[in-house]
Amino acid sequence: MIKLLLIALALFAVFNFSFAQTEEQIKNSKPASTNVQNAQFPRITPDLRVIYRMKAPEDAKIQFDLAGKKYDMVKDKDGFLTVITDPQVPGFHYYRLWINGVEVSDPASETFFGVGRMFSAIEIPSAGEDFYTLKNVPHGDIRTKLYFSKTTNEWRKIYIYCPPGYDKDIKKKYPVLYIQHGGGEDQRGWAVQGLTDVILDNLIAEGSAKPMIVVMESSAARKPGEPLPQPRQAPATPAPPPIVLGQSNQPAAPGAPRPRMNFSFDTFKEVMLNDLIPFIDKNFRTLTDGNNRAMAGLSMGGMVTTSVTFTNLDKFAYIGCFSGGPRVTEKDTLSKIYNGAFADAAKFNKKVKLFFISNGTVEGNSPLIAGEILKKAGINNIVVYQSPGTAHEWLTWRRSLNQFARLLFKK
Amino acid sequence: MIKLLLIALALFAVFNFSFAQTEEQIKNSKPASTNVQNAQFPRITPDLRVIYRMKAPEDAKIQFDLAGKKYDMVKDKDGFLTVITDPQVPGFHYYRLWINGVEVSDPASETFFGVGRMFSAIEIPSAGEDFYTLKNVPHGDIRTKLYFSKTTNEWRKIYIYCPPGYDKDIKKKYPVLYIQHGGGEDQRGWAVQGLTDVILDNLIAEGSAKPMIVVMESSAARKPGEPLPQPRQAPATPAPPPIVLGQSNQPAAPGAPRPRMNFSFDTFKEVMLNDLIPFIDKNFRTLTDGNNRAMAGLSMGGMVTTSVTFTNLDKFAYIGCFSGGPRVTEKDTLSKIYNGAFADAAKFNKKVKLFFISNGTVEGNSPLIAGEILKKAGINNIVVYQSPGTAHEWLTWRRSLNQFARLLFKK
Repeated sequence: MIKLLLIALALFAVFNFSFAQTEEQIKNSKPASTNVQNAQFPRITPDLRVIYRMKAPEDAKIQFDLAGKKYDMVKDKDGFLTVITDPQVPGFHYYRLWINGVEVSDPASETFFGVGRMFSAIEIPSAGEDFYTLKNVPHGDIRTKLYFSKTTNEWRKIYIYCPPGYDKDIKKKYPVLYIQHGGGEDQRGWAVQGLTDVILDNLIAEGSAKPMIVVMESSAARKPGEPLPQPRQAPATPAPPPIVLGQSNQPAAPGAPRPRMNFSFDTFKEVMLNDLIPFIDKNFRTLTDGNNRAMAGLSMGGMVTTSVTFTNLDKFAYIGCFSGGPRVTEKDTLSKIYNGAFADAAKFNKKVKLFFISNGTVEGNSPLIAGEILKKAGINNIVVYQSPGTAHEWLTWRRSLNQFARLLFKK
Repeated sequence: MIKLLLIALALFAVFNFSFAQTEEQIKNSKPASTNVQNAQFPRITPDLRVIYRMKAPEDAKIQFDLAGKKYDMVKDKDGFLTVITDPQVPGFHYYRLWINGVEVSDPASETFFGVGRMFSAIEIPSAGEDFYTLKNVPHGDIRTKLYFSKTTNEWRKIYIYCPPGYDKDIKKKYPVLYIQHGGGEDQRGWAVQGLTDVILDNLIAEGSAKPMIVVMESSAARKPGEPLPQPRQAPATPAPPPIVLGQSNQPAAPGAPRPRMNFSFDTFKEVMLNDLIPFIDKNFRTLTDGNNRAMAGLSMGGMVTTSVTFTNLDKFAYIGCFSGGPRVTEKDTLSKIYNGAFADAAKFNKKVKLFFISNGTVEGNSPLIAGEILKKAGINNIVVYQSPGTAHEWLTWRRSLNQFARLLFKK
């Protein structure tokens, strides 16, 4: 009997210790910047754990799903469900709630279009890294514009970053970077998750990047009557790399079909060359030669970028592929892949002033391999960048933009 | 035994008929325009019912919550949960999913900041009404800008509609409408749910409204160290109407506290007069006199509007209150309410060229009553508008803007 009592007391002590520990961790944590105003959870601890807490009825079985791991939420003595996750890698991570096996979004978080759905996400701060922090510097703006595409016969919505001072010095003309989202995202990716305006404002303020216009458009483009291509359909360029699905790319939604790639690369190429670029050059003060035009994209957007630029090297002197395309291995015959873009190194070198390829170190070393092979084959102006410690996620791509933008329009 | 078999057969027939009927309704319905790309549900039938369908595990009890009614989702023979709602009132309605009693958002719908949270919503088309339909007309744009507020010591994000041609005729100056969201919303309300750009583009194209700039800012403003006021704290003006919570305003979120009003009207007034208006007048080509400045707001934003304008009639010749403020009844002594703004009718009439008050007919007739009383008291230039058949919801406010904007800057 005394033994049982001692065990009970011990259990009580452990429970209370654990409870007190949780409350202490909550006290020392801060609400995530991605929460809606006044929402207290999720919170982030100094060692980058995420604390999530909610009230739920007895029969709800709830899991908090972050960075590829599902955490069971545990009821405490006050009836709240609480979870404290493992320490997280800095950066922007989608999260979901699983309630009795149904995957849903958290109304207390801002939501973001990724993985073909509107998902909650959490911004884990990155110590000592402030290139995407809003600072006390001159700010440009992002403009939401509609333009009419004859190719798709529709008004299309684009986001355009205009640098600080764009409306002041009304004679000045600017170079333009066209930047593409990844699969399951749209034109909001770089404007919202990517923090393109903050990154460019900061770079321009410190003199590290030239003032430029950045155009964000969706790759989803179909001509009237054009059928939906099948997912992962081969684009026009041969030997396309497959879409690499990282941990942030595991799609699912209640009962809905998985997102399908609702466009062909060829149609988007037409939209971009025949409708978008002419619209931008007509309606913004741009420098219109190829030496003042760049294109970049992340993941599938990297493939879109090679599809558009490699067949139009006159029009794009700066090319960036973040976590996607080109996949070049020792097995490839350089002259045969990517429509022969690498077949004539001298020609490529003459037209392309920068060919930037990057990924996160967690994704592997394919850019390093590709970079070595291409350099050996005489392709110059290659810059390879790897984001330390990050996966197929937005911090990889923010860092890639930060590195890429510094190199643009300087040759 | 034969009796039992007959009953079974009859039940089977009913079940099959009902199943076939549902499939027929799905076939005749269309995905909502508010769905994310390619999402097939929710769908809308020709008689404006909403069909929602999802796949869920056995033990999940799911309700589809739309327009104040929770519909139990029923499993069909293919294992899908399906619901067909009552016919809906046209307009923009928030919806939620309740899964085992937990209220969450649907990743397959665009989400919108309302009721202090990011909620799913559905756009129910309004037959014969196209003032907020994207048309083949010249389009302005919405610009996301940061400006620094000395009052709150922070960079604040605003949305600014610039009319078509703003960047073409760079000598032309424009009048400005400042328009405020409601409680539990922010500066995105009018830009996203409100479709301000579409409404203004259409009005300007048909010559029904003067080209104008529209500024959308959040009323949430606190000085450094200023404590959070309690919800529904009385604003500076006496006898404020309570915040009327409509069916779209029943907040809740998993475990999170209900949204609190995180600002005082007085602080926002300072932000607006001392920081925002000077920023706009400095950075946009505006007409800066009071006759070319309007302010309007919905619900709580109507109260914000009276708080700012009634004490600054020199600065705002056009005032609009949609579903919120002023509440004037026979019991009120006109000279004593709203800081005495109505005490001197001649003075009010001289300065205010338009005082527009509106709501939806489902909300009652308080604007009619207020209008009658104020007219009797000699207040001229009052226009009362009621949106037929709508409640405290966005279609009421879109229609109010559509009516209000036609009357602006024409006297």
